[in-house]
Amino acid sequence: MTDRFAVTYHIRSDASQIEARAQSIAVEQSVEMPIDAIEHQDILDHTVGKVADITDLGDGLFQVRIDLSLASTGLEAGQLINMLFGNSSIYDDVALADADFPDALMAAFPGPGPGMVGLQGNNLRRALTGSALKPQGLPPQGLAKIAAKLAAGELDFIKDDHGLADQAYAPFAARVKACAKAVREANPATRYIPSVTGNLDVMRSQIKIARDNGLDAVMIAPMIAGLPNLEALRRENPDLALFAHPALAGSARIAPPLLLGKLFRLFGADATIFPNHGGRFGYSPHTCGQLADAARQDWSGLAPCLPVPAGGMTTERVDEMLDFYGTQVMLLIGGALLAAKDTMTQETLAFTRKVHAYGR
Amino acid sequence: MTDRFAVTYHIRSDASQIEARAQSIAVEQSVEMPIDAIEHQDILDHTVGKVADITDLGDGLFQVRIDLSLASTGLEAGQLINMLFGNSSIYDDVALADADFPDALMAAFPGPGPGMVGLQGNNLRRALTGSALKPQGLPPQGLAKIAAKLAAGELDFIKDDHGLADQAYAPFAARVKACAKAVREANPATRYIPSVTGNLDVMRSQIKIARDNGLDAVMIAPMIAGLPNLEALRRENPDLALFAHPALAGSARIAPPLLLGKLFRLFGADATIFPNHGGRFGYSPHTCGQLADAARQDWSGLAPCLPVPAGGMTTERVDEMLDFYGTQVMLLIGGALLAAKDTMTQETLAFTRKVHAYGR
Repeated sequence: MTDRFAVTYHIRSDASQIEARAQSIAVEQSVEMPIDAIEHQDILDHTVGKVADITDLGDGLFQVRIDLSLASTGLEAGQLINMLFGNSSIYDDVALADADFPDALMAAFPGPGPGMVGLQGNNLRRALTGSALKPQGLPPQGLAKIAAKLAAGELDFIKDDHGLADQAYAPFAARVKACAKAVREANPATRYIPSVTGNLDVMRSQIKIARDNGLDAVMIAPMIAGLPNLEALRRENPDLALFAHPALAGSARIAPPLLLGKLFRLFGADATIFPNHGGRFGYSPHTCGQLADAARQDWSGLAPCLPVPAGGMTTERVDEMLDFYGTQVMLLIGGALLAAKDTMTQETLAFTRKVHAYGR
Repeated sequence: MTDRFAVTYHIRSDASQIEARAQSIAVEQSVEMPIDAIEHQDILDHTVGKVADITDLGDGLFQVRIDLSLASTGLEAGQLINMLFGNSSIYDDVALADADFPDALMAAFPGPGPGMVGLQGNNLRRALTGSALKPQGLPPQGLAKIAAKLAAGELDFIKDDHGLADQAYAPFAARVKACAKAVREANPATRYIPSVTGNLDVMRSQIKIARDNGLDAVMIAPMIAGLPNLEALRRENPDLALFAHPALAGSARIAPPLLLGKLFRLFGADATIFPNHGGRFGYSPHTCGQLADAARQDWSGLAPCLPVPAGGMTTERVDEMLDFYGTQVMLLIGGALLAAKDTMTQETLAFTRKVHAYGR
């Protein structure tokens, strides 16, 4: 049945109510009206969501598969997420767990540009290293000074903290110019990733500034920018590495492996940053493993997307993280390196050398 | 302290841990790094989030007020929501409850264009009436036929179902042309509101098509489109009525009165559609009342935004809803009117007449 795709929801319900509840979600996520009132057989056959399977997961939780109309997605990022979870995001008892997309859908979306392999370059056999430039509040020269210290620690990447935007105390253009220069001078092998923010036009102008400063990667928070705009930037910039940040991604009860792994990748992310287990955030090892798998496993010919576990990581955890994720990954340590202040470069070197030494 | 604004979170915690947890959220939502590592007194004074108040709400829930840096918002919609809830959206134990904005922030955002009063026109003393055009799957002429039947019922507004996008079976341009014509011919006083979707450029081109068809209102789902793009469309179209749809807005994590009431209004929505209590969705009367208040109450000189309770409403509930919301509101009944099929126009007339008769 190629005119449908399968979506999996987790629904809290009494066993006696689950069939009716599943059916109501199938209607909510498709025609959103009483099906008795639909007079066209064609719509009943091809457009109304169909409950395909209900599995009792125990403790009042049910896994429900609903087959939705492929044509209704319009093969566009915003309408796809709308079909997956638009209105149902408002239900307290429903979470979006997973989705399977047929080739016809996969072929309509861009997927990553340079992707994981492009980001790895000649470093295919070891994990990549990254850190985050902070804190917000510093002027461009203050950030540039920190960027230089981090770059001297031989990182592969330094990304902006997602809190760096286009603030009066550090306007994007001045900040990116200062930091790009500082990183280049401290270590030409380190790539600086500025965070682009604002509406689509503003992000475009920021990408131009990044390129004018010799940069070939930027970070975007797709749930703030809007998923359709991630797709647009990907199509317009096939050569640019797009790092996806999870800001605001947690507010809608979408399973992280689906949203941060599959969907961000499908719409064009080359790397996906996510909170590693055991850090400040509550993702489980299982969730993190699934997310990394979703980002980089074979998927209908799409380039792999680089998993970037982060969020309260330390150099002490490098071996454990690489045991867990393997080396097709970027490890990102922010605060723990910045906390070293005067010995920031040495601490960064300790991190990067530990990553380089892993498995040798 | 005009360089700060107050944000209220609801945090689940043990009483013994709440001070530390509140402090960690204050850091997460600002500098996102160990504050011991911050060497600039200026950043400690003006940028790091400050816990201002902790109130025990009982049952392990605490209300925490955190004062954040105004300058860090960059006075831009995306960065504002990022400061409010970017990373903390990922915490299971934190919800965004409310925010208070100083005049300096309010003055930087557009707020509604025509707003509630512009939408009311000469109907200031009664509630407005609306319905939704469905189902997705119909071709343009099928939708136009339904639109004509609804318009003949003397509705003030007919909005697209949020599931109508730019699908192959009903491309936006053909659909809007057919429906605008059908509505105009059936009742020139009824205003048709097409749903615009996709990236910012696509939405712009759809707005142009809407205008070319004589329309002066469109619907947008800000959480799918990205909040910065709502702000952009508002600034570019001061005369266009923007209806905000709650798709992907989620239920539990950002308080609906803040997101759908305050923030959508601040960024430019003229009307905000939300699930009424007692319908298909779980909003309480208290939440709905707060949301309507947030949308239309005096707020720093911003035009009021029209509350549009919807989601499984019926004509039987008109009096009760108007008792609850007053008449400065639009009542929106979709499925219940569509379900009438052959008597759709009569049922719609019964709805609109009941609204017109209220309070006479």
